[in-house]
Amino acid sequence: MSNKKPLAIIKIGGNIIDDPTELTHFLEDFSKIEGNKILVHGGGKSATKMAKSIGLVPQMIDGRRITDQPMLDVVVMIYAGEINKKIVAQLQANNTNAMGFSGADGNLIQSTKRNHPTIDYGFVGDVQKVNTALLETLINNGIVPVFCAITHDKKGQLLNTNADSIASELAIAASEVFDVTLNYCFEKAGVLADVDDENSVIQQINSVLYSKLKEEGAIHSGMIPKLDNCFNSLSKGVQKIKIGHHKMLKNVDALCTSIEL
Amino acid sequence: MSNKKPLAIIKIGGNIIDDPTELTHFLEDFSKIEGNKILVHGGGKSATKMAKSIGLVPQMIDGRRITDQPMLDVVVMIYAGEINKKIVAQLQANNTNAMGFSGADGNLIQSTKRNHPTIDYGFVGDVQKVNTALLETLINNGIVPVFCAITHDKKGQLLNTNADSIASELAIAASEVFDVTLNYCFEKAGVLADVDDENSVIQQINSVLYSKLKEEGAIHSGMIPKLDNCFNSLSKGVQKIKIGHHKMLKNVDALCTSIEL
Repeated sequence: MSNKKPLAIIKIGGNIIDDPTELTHFLEDFSKIEGNKILVHGGGKSATKMAKSIGLVPQMIDGRRITDQPMLDVVVMIYAGEINKKIVAQLQANNTNAMGFSGADGNLIQSTKRNHPTIDYGFVGDVQKVNTALLETLINNGIVPVFCAITHDKKGQLLNTNADSIASELAIAASEVFDVTLNYCFEKAGVLADVDDENSVIQQINSVLYSKLKEEGAIHSGMIPKLDNCFNSLSKGVQKIKIGHHKMLKNVDALCTSIEL
Repeated sequence: MSNKKPLAIIKIGGNIIDDPTELTHFLEDFSKIEGNKILVHGGGKSATKMAKSIGLVPQMIDGRRITDQPMLDVVVMIYAGEINKKIVAQLQANNTNAMGFSGADGNLIQSTKRNHPTIDYGFVGDVQKVNTALLETLINNGIVPVFCAITHDKKGQLLNTNADSIASELAIAASEVFDVTLNYCFEKAGVLADVDDENSVIQQINSVLYSKLKEEGAIHSGMIPKLDNCFNSLSKGVQKIKIGHHKMLKNVDALCTSIEL
C-alpha cells in the first residue's frame, strides 16, 4: 500500500471536443471527480476546419498531422486558445479551479522536434521531460491543470504533440509523487474484441493477453499505439489504466477496459 | 518605507506584438529585469487580419472592438493561443519561467459583461476582481505570469477585455501584497506636449498638471483613458507608473513620463 496521494489523469479525444453538449456533460462529470486531477484534451476537427477556411491543405501521414509553420500557428491558436480556454471557463463555472496549459507554460512539458529518418513531420514534438515539481506545487495549491497537445523545445519553438503521449508522459512523471490512475476516454466503451460489436468490450487486458491478441491480429490497428503507450506507462510506475467511454468516470459499473501489466 | 516586495507590471501594446524583431528585443530586455514581474500583452493586428481572412467584418466603436460570438472566438484563439504561447515559449528560451494566462485560468481575473445603456459591445468584460492570493502564490514560486486580454465571468463565458485595464486592475490588486511599479510601453517615448514632436515628452505629470493640461486640450484624446486609468491606479495603492517606449525598461535614463498623484 503506497502512501502517495491519488491523482486521476483523464484524456479526452476529439469526439467529445467536437460535440458541445457531450463536452458540457463530460465537464460536469469531470468536475464531480473528487481529489487531485488533470485533464488532457485532444484537438478535434476545428483545427482542420480552420486550416481549410484560411486556405491551408492539411496533410496526414499514418494518422499524424504534418505540421508546417502555418499549420502550427493554427493548432496553437485552436488547441491552446479556443478549445483550452473554453474548457477552462466551463470548469470554472462548475467550481473546478482549472488552469489551462501548453507545455511551454512554466516549462511544464519540454519536448524535442521529431527527427524521423524518412518523414519530415514538421513542428511535431516528442515529450522529453515533465516539470514534476511545479506540477505538484500547482496541484497542492488546489489547481486542476488542463493540458492541450502543444509543447515546446525550451529554445522558443512550440511543437504539436500527440495528446495520448502527453497524458502518458504526465502520468509517468507524476507517478514519482502520486498514485496515478490514467483514463483514456474515447467514443467506444473500451477495447473491442469485435470492432462491429459495441458489447464485445475486453474488460481486462494484461501483457500476456495483449501479446496473444496482437499475434492473432485481433486488435484494431488504431488501438495498438494507444495500448503500447499504456503498457509503457504501467512499466514506468503508473498504477492503473482504464480505456472507455467517459461515462466510466461517473459510473464505476460501466463497461470499460482495464489494462494491467 | 514599505516592507512589501517589489513587483514590476509591464504592459505592451500592439505595436510590439506586430513586429517580430521588436518583440524579440523586448522579450530579451524583459527577461533581464530582476525580481518579481508580470507581463500583460495587447492583441495587435492579427485578430483583425484573421477575422477578415475567415470573412468576418470587424466593427469598432470609440476605439473598442464590438465582440460578437465569431469575433470572440477569433480574439480568444489569437490572444490566448497564438500570441500568448509564442511569448511564453520565447521567454522560456530566455530562461524566464513564464506561464501564460487568460483571466479564466485559476479564476485569476473575473469580469462582468459590459452593460452599456446605448451600445451593445457584445462579449466585452470589465474587470470585477483579481485572485490576488493565487497570483501571489504563483509569483512566490518563481512564476512570471503573462496575461492576455481575455477574462471570464465565472459562469462559463469568456470576455474580451481592454489590456490597459487588465494591467491597472492587476496592479491595484497586487498592491495589497507588493510594492507595484506599473509600466505602460507603447510606440512613443512618453506623453507628448506636441503630438508631432517626439522630443516633447512631459517627464512628470501629477494630478494638478493633468487637470490643467486636459482643460487646455493639450492631451491627445487617445491618451486620456490611459491617464485616467493611471491616476485611478495610483489612488488605489500602486506606487509608481511610467509611460514610454519599452527601452525605458533597459535604460533608466531614457525619456519617459512618470505619473504621480
